[in-house]
Amino acid sequence: MTDPRFFRAVGPFTVAEIAAFTGAEIGGAADTALQLADVAPLDTAGPRHLSFLSNVKYTAAMGQSKAGAAFLHPSFAARAPAGMTLLLSANPYMAFAKAAGRFYPYPKRPGGIAASAVVDPTAVLGEGVSVGHNAVIEAGAEIGAGTDLGSNTTIGVNVVIGQDCIIGANVTISHAVIGNHVTLYPGVRVGQDGFGFASDARGHVRIPQLGIVRIGDDVEIGANSTVDRGGSDTVIGAGTMIDNLVQIGHNVVLGRCCVMAAQSGISGSTKLGDFVVVGAQVGITGHLAVGSGVRIGGQSGVMRNVPAGTEVAGTPAVPRLQWLRQSAILARLATKKDK
Amino acid sequence: MTDPRFFRAVGPFTVAEIAAFTGAEIGGAADTALQLADVAPLDTAGPRHLSFLSNVKYTAAMGQSKAGAAFLHPSFAARAPAGMTLLLSANPYMAFAKAAGRFYPYPKRPGGIAASAVVDPTAVLGEGVSVGHNAVIEAGAEIGAGTDLGSNTTIGVNVVIGQDCIIGANVTISHAVIGNHVTLYPGVRVGQDGFGFASDARGHVRIPQLGIVRIGDDVEIGANSTVDRGGSDTVIGAGTMIDNLVQIGHNVVLGRCCVMAAQSGISGSTKLGDFVVVGAQVGITGHLAVGSGVRIGGQSGVMRNVPAGTEVAGTPAVPRLQWLRQSAILARLATKKDK
Amino acid sequence: MTDPRFFRAVGPFTVAEIAAFTGAEIGGAADTALQLADVAPLDTAGPRHLSFLSNVKYTAAMGQSKAGAAFLHPSFAARAPAGMTLLLSANPYMAFAKAAGRFYPYPKRPGGIAASAVVDPTAVLGEGVSVGHNAVIEAGAEIGAGTDLGSNTTIGVNVVIGQDCIIGANVTISHAVIGNHVTLYPGVRVGQDGFGFASDARGHVRIPQLGIVRIGDDVEIGANSTVDRGGSDTVIGAGTMIDNLVQIGHNVVLGRCCVMAAQSGISGSTKLGDFVVVGAQVGITGHLAVGSGVRIGGQSGVMRNVPAGTEVAGTPAVPRLQWLRQSAILARLATKKDK
Repeated sequence: MTDPRFFRAVGPFTVAEIAAFTGAEIGGAADTALQLADVAPLDTAGPRHLSFLSNVKYTAAMGQSKAGAAFLHPSFAARAPAGMTLLLSANPYMAFAKAAGRFYPYPKRPGGIAASAVVDPTAVLGEGVSVGHNAVIEAGAEIGAGTDLGSNTTIGVNVVIGQDCIIGANVTISHAVIGNHVTLYPGVRVGQDGFGFASDARGHVRIPQLGIVRIGDDVEIGANSTVDRGGSDTVIGAGTMIDNLVQIGHNVVLGRCCVMAAQSGISGSTKLGDFVVVGAQVGITGHLAVGSGVRIGGQSGVMRNVPAGTEVAGTPAVPRLQWLRQSAILARLATKKDK
Repeated sequence: MTDPRFFRAVGPFTVAEIAAFTGAEIGGAADTALQLADVAPLDTAGPRHLSFLSNVKYTAAMGQSKAGAAFLHPSFAARAPAGMTLLLSANPYMAFAKAAGRFYPYPKRPGGIAASAVVDPTAVLGEGVSVGHNAVIEAGAEIGAGTDLGSNTTIGVNVVIGQDCIIGANVTISHAVIGNHVTLYPGVRVGQDGFGFASDARGHVRIPQLGIVRIGDDVEIGANSTVDRGGSDTVIGAGTMIDNLVQIGHNVVLGRCCVMAAQSGISGSTKLGDFVVVGAQVGITGHLAVGSGVRIGGQSGVMRNVPAGTEVAGTPAVPRLQWLRQSAILARLATKKDK
Repeated sequence: MTDPRFFRAVGPFTVAEIAAFTGAEIGGAADTALQLADVAPLDTAGPRHLSFLSNVKYTAAMGQSKAGAAFLHPSFAARAPAGMTLLLSANPYMAFAKAAGRFYPYPKRPGGIAASAVVDPTAVLGEGVSVGHNAVIEAGAEIGAGTDLGSNTTIGVNVVIGQDCIIGANVTISHAVIGNHVTLYPGVRVGQDGFGFASDARGHVRIPQLGIVRIGDDVEIGANSTVDRGGSDTVIGAGTMIDNLVQIGHNVVLGRCCVMAAQSGISGSTKLGDFVVVGAQVGITGHLAVGSGVRIGGQSGVMRNVPAGTEVAGTPAVPRLQWLRQSAILARLATKKDK
């Protein structure tokens, strides 16, 4: 299935090993010593493959699958074919994600500094740091052990990056303190000064932005996204996942484990709680508070505070059910004969 | 007209040569040996310039033009001034595009690898490949004959790029197989892993993305656009034109000759047919099917499948005429006195 | 307050010096020889700090502030605590911006060309130009005195950049003439050819774009924004401020001192007057005229010309008050019981 030019599975792992690092419970035929060589979807998996069922609509595929082992919810155990080793989990997709990550870890380059890289003698690099070709690390920067910096990437003065981070190629970072296990995809820009200025009839004058960007552990930021610094710190909470081409304005604070889909943006000084889900192309204006667990539909324009746990959509954003009704009413008015 | 610091016309070409490579039919005064030195708009063109008429509103300008030769539709031949050599074509703008491309081909650098470039010894470069300053080509990559790689660009392990491609400066490519005559503008990111993860109350875990990105012949992708890889291959069909800052999510399949205007985006696993036209800032949600020939108005949010050959607009996207009526009704309600 | 790893105030400056370079009038306790060491907000400022009051809601904070000196409007002078040196200004925020810029000027690197930079021998560099690591300057380019080019940045053939510009890291510039005091943030792409092509049933053929990009003095362009060239020149007027991830299409003309917020975009050949304010994620279609002083609300889609001095919002954009009414009516219809 996978193209061996680009991907190669690590392994094999036994069923017992996989159960151990995913927390799944072993059921079914239960050959715990079975060596699993790779992951695969239910329909193409063979006897040495690990698969999963996380969506009811694939239940039939499960019944006919030749997978050696599969993650699934205990309530579906009876639908599995005889002979399949079952890995029972309340969240089989999560279990599969963890297992697949073991088979296909990020292919780190061997530690070491490329001959063409420019590393300031005052920079401090931890053990096993890998610095790509033509990368630049400026004075005083600190790079944690095991971190991998891509080619043609630029790390500014005194930037701090934690351990085991993956910083892609052609990235720019300045004025930032970054945690551990952070992934920045190619073309990310972190730490440039935010869009703040004073204006009069003669024009605009920038306000110096004297805060920095703080990025928590396990954060991921997608290709060509931008994170500005402001007057106070711009903060991205641990575990937050940010897609491509996203704009994080200055002084914005994101809580833990938020999700921001592609091309969404947050204007200056807005604060999000934890586990907020922001749809693609959403815009959130400045100086707002968006509570934990809020879900914002794609392309919405949020112009007011949003209470925790609610779901909004539309421009201006309103409760999601209201937005659905608005759209339906408008459609009905437009298709009425005698209007 | 053109600034000679930045542009220099190749040529001259005779009328006969131009007719031959554009397929136009020679009419009018028809001096087939006339040497044309450059292209120019009707109003500024002189006797050694090649021009065109493709829009009725410039018919008067045609009548007064001093252009030595011009492409035009046969039905307008009578409006041309005496003495102008006519190049008759059913699509004069296309004919002009082809001719102008001959006068102003992409200014390729002489083949050769810049001294500062880093090319892995296992990479395979075709004849006449040009590698820009500080560009990086990693192990096993294959670059087809005549392809031009810009400065500070990073080509990942085992990436395949076809012949006569133009890869701009500061581009990043990984996990991709790219056809011939492809143009990637500066800052394009191809092949990073898509935005897919499993979630639970503790956070999010990435799913390894084991597909690659496949880009067909003659594709163009605009500056700072991003194309992710997914679980299955992300495919951009031959001849598709993509503008700047566009997001192509993982597993997306675009057909042949689609057009995506700036800042539009497509979420994961959506499939487009051929010759789909996507307006600027459009968003298309995931797992949809958009038929061939569909036209999507600017800023629309497409949330359902769209049948081939139709035109939609709005968020949520509806048939274009309905959207126009919706907008008109809303405007009328808002401007009624007694509402 | 500020992290000394990333920021260090220049100075101190006396009250008299600050009054002189900001044009403020000295009032209150008026110790003109007082040495001010730094800037700070009213609530955290101490006796050697310079602060400001520009928003009525901080009047109470002003009354209790320990700041040694502060900018404020003359009408608020009576609210200031005894002992505070007052710097009276009709626009205290502008005065503060100028003063803060003196305390925190852009930290220019010492002039000089990094050993790893590639500078074509025919390029002309003014006095004190700084060229970052692995930056590339191609043949014939001219870089004005005091300009600072970031690392891994690529400057194309014959590009002209004025004096005292700040060009960030990982930037790409081609086919452009740029004024003085211009700031381009990391990842900006200037001068690639615009999205123009002829189409027929066989596909699309690019039109060569023979204009260039002209950027006036004091312009700022945010991270990962893109500015295309077209058939005629793309122009960004002096003093215009552009945020991150903004798209400026080919042949677009922006007047003086416009403001474009993040992720907004302008399609080909549209012209804006002076001091136009474009909200975040706004889209403006091609070939339009937007008058001076127009304000466009966030996420709007402008599809018609907009008269000078007006305010519009919505998609399609309508006068702002009408848009507010439309939104209110729609909400009312959707929340009516018996609808």
